Amino acid sequence: MRGLLPVWRHAGGGSVSAPFASSRRALPARVTLAHGGGGSAMRDLIDGVFRAAFADDGALPAAEDQARFDLAALAAKGDRLAFTTDGFVVDPLFFPGGDIGTLAVCGTINDLAVGGAVPVALSCAAIVEEGLPVEVLRRVAASMAQAARAAGVPIATGDTKVVARGACDKLFVTTTGIGVVRAGLDIGIDKARPGDVILVNGLLGDHGAAILNARGDLALETAIESDCAALDGLVAALIASAPGIRMMRDATRGGVAAVLNELAEASRVGVSVRELDLPIRPEVTGFCEILGLDPLYLANEGKLVAVVPAEEADAALAALRAHPLGRGAAAIGRVSDGRPGRVVMETRFGGARVVDMLVGDQLPRIC
Amino acid sequence: MRGLLPVWRHAGGGSVSAPFASSRRALPARVTLAHGGGGSAMRDLIDGVFRAAFADDGALPAAEDQARFDLAALAAKGDRLAFTTDGFVVDPLFFPGGDIGTLAVCGTINDLAVGGAVPVALSCAAIVEEGLPVEVLRRVAASMAQAARAAGVPIATGDTKVVARGACDKLFVTTTGIGVVRAGLDIGIDKARPGDVILVNGLLGDHGAAILNARGDLALETAIESDCAALDGLVAALIASAPGIRMMRDATRGGVAAVLNELAEASRVGVSVRELDLPIRPEVTGFCEILGLDPLYLANEGKLVAVVPAEEADAALAALRAHPLGRGAAAIGRVSDGRPGRVVMETRFGGARVVDMLVGDQLPRIC
Repeated sequence: MRGLLPVWRHAGGGSVSAPFASSRRALPARVTLAHGGGGSAMRDLIDGVFRAAFADDGALPAAEDQARFDLAALAAKGDRLAFTTDGFVVDPLFFPGGDIGTLAVCGTINDLAVGGAVPVALSCAAIVEEGLPVEVLRRVAASMAQAARAAGVPIATGDTKVVARGACDKLFVTTTGIGVVRAGLDIGIDKARPGDVILVNGLLGDHGAAILNARGDLALETAIESDCAALDGLVAALIASAPGIRMMRDATRGGVAAVLNELAEASRVGVSVRELDLPIRPEVTGFCEILGLDPLYLANEGKLVAVVPAEEADAALAALRAHPLGRGAAAIGRVSDGRPGRVVMETRFGGARVVDMLVGDQLPRIC
Repeated sequence: MRGLLPVWRHAGGGSVSAPFASSRRALPARVTLAHGGGGSAMRDLIDGVFRAAFADDGALPAAEDQARFDLAALAAKGDRLAFTTDGFVVDPLFFPGGDIGTLAVCGTINDLAVGGAVPVALSCAAIVEEGLPVEVLRRVAASMAQAARAAGVPIATGDTKVVARGACDKLFVTTTGIGVVRAGLDIGIDKARPGDVILVNGLLGDHGAAILNARGDLALETAIESDCAALDGLVAALIASAPGIRMMRDATRGGVAAVLNELAEASRVGVSVRELDLPIRPEVTGFCEILGLDPLYLANEGKLVAVVPAEEADAALAALRAHPLGRGAAAIGRVSDGRPGRVVMETRFGGARVVDMLVGDQLPRIC
């Protein structure tokens, strides 16, 4: 069994060796400091929660304190290894459409995917507050396992720390991903050119709205769900349809506005978007108006911004719309030869306003 | 400049593009929630703290939200990619001999090294409490950069989250490492055989003692320093001297006792160690006696346990002692055909006692 299980650090920096059957103990209802101590309690927690959820995830046999991958097999997929990390501190842990576990898996898969990489594996480092119900950890681990399996990306190695009550808020999860960048693919935030078309793959702002609503700040009658999803399949279809694609970026913290500002600055181009072309739910538009928020800055967890040459825009849009995660795809604007670094929105009333990079975020702990 | 800088996520899941000179702002004295918000404040923090420290770390040019490494170059170093992660929550952040930054870098380098991998790069995901002095972050980043440079391992990508005051205790850092396992090397915690010799590379328990002392729990007159160090160079020398080496493991949480128990269980062998052969400072022995602790369970951050065939033990010991981080190396015991999974210590008084795996740790937040 051991060879099929992912590695999980538990003691002395060590991997979890196959426990003797007799050493399995039932877990208590809540996490204690001993569960982070590197001893048998930690092994019980890791075995009973994380390994139980992540088993059969397809990780390579590994007897050491690290997952291992055959380099020749990786090189067969592309020419460059991609490596990215992201910490998740979302509050609340569970929300309509997902939880911190789905976010942590999908978020890092998306970071790999939008860089042009085929995801290979994830690691997961959890920091747990003493007293957290073990059942909460189980639900999060199950969500992670489900999201990882759906994407075919194993959670191959991990770590668990427990801190005293009050030293962290329930649970933080950091995932790191490795992937292989498709050979010959040359995309980048600095590669947009005037005339290029800017696409998104669907409704914007749902994640931010779902988190706000889950915190009870809105009391909306319609529950908006987070759009949390792994975009690697969608990205593969998009690249195949638009081989000249310039860049992709997932529009998480800071929303579409942050991505547009970044690409305008990095590519030293202007960007213009049309408010009427932005796919946004009426409910999201509505509560943004009430709260003084701008949906362009709301976080998404299953939406990307892509820039493609004008001649490939139709094919790209069709490819996105043909994918289950891109049905609501839209062309939202153009790269222009306007002032480099400036993002301008043509408003629904025919005016124009600058879309700046925000100083902070509209909402803390959105992911 | 940008191509030389490591990637750091800041907005919309994005990499940090080269900021316009005019967009650089002086940082405030303390971290605010805006610094985690995905906007320009976050970029200022990342530019002013992390990128300022990690620049010139040798990461490959990367325009995307991920570091990238040439797979052919990796394959030239070995046949398998190693991947490991570890969260650091040590309290206090600064202690004699190191801080959370040196721990986070050395700890993950060591996890790669003891698995037989040559470290290639690290990622760093920081979770910061609102109100943390920016100067604290700067010191930690400087420590990370220094430790990474000394080991020749770049910090290639990162992420920063800020949570509200009280939602985490100052600062947590998760590092993930990739490395390449030497071709043909076949080591593992399950490969110890009766007759093998067990080695350590020096004084045990210093890290645990240093942390305890830094918390003010001891008030020792002599300040014991953490042994925090990157062991990749030592490991290379050890492997070269003992090509038949069975396993290595860094003795962190749970100390040497945890490693010995794990290897006894995984290899289904007995382990016997001699108390008189354990290299332990008199001060550490002394305070352990006073506090009722056992130095064999104290955490180390620059010590490994290695198991080598008897015929290679002398060469291995000599190689360890010839290295600056192995001057105090010692053979501490043997793998035996005793009861599988049991670790027995011959005490200084000639008796014998079982060294069990602890249920938890003696000290929370030791790393």
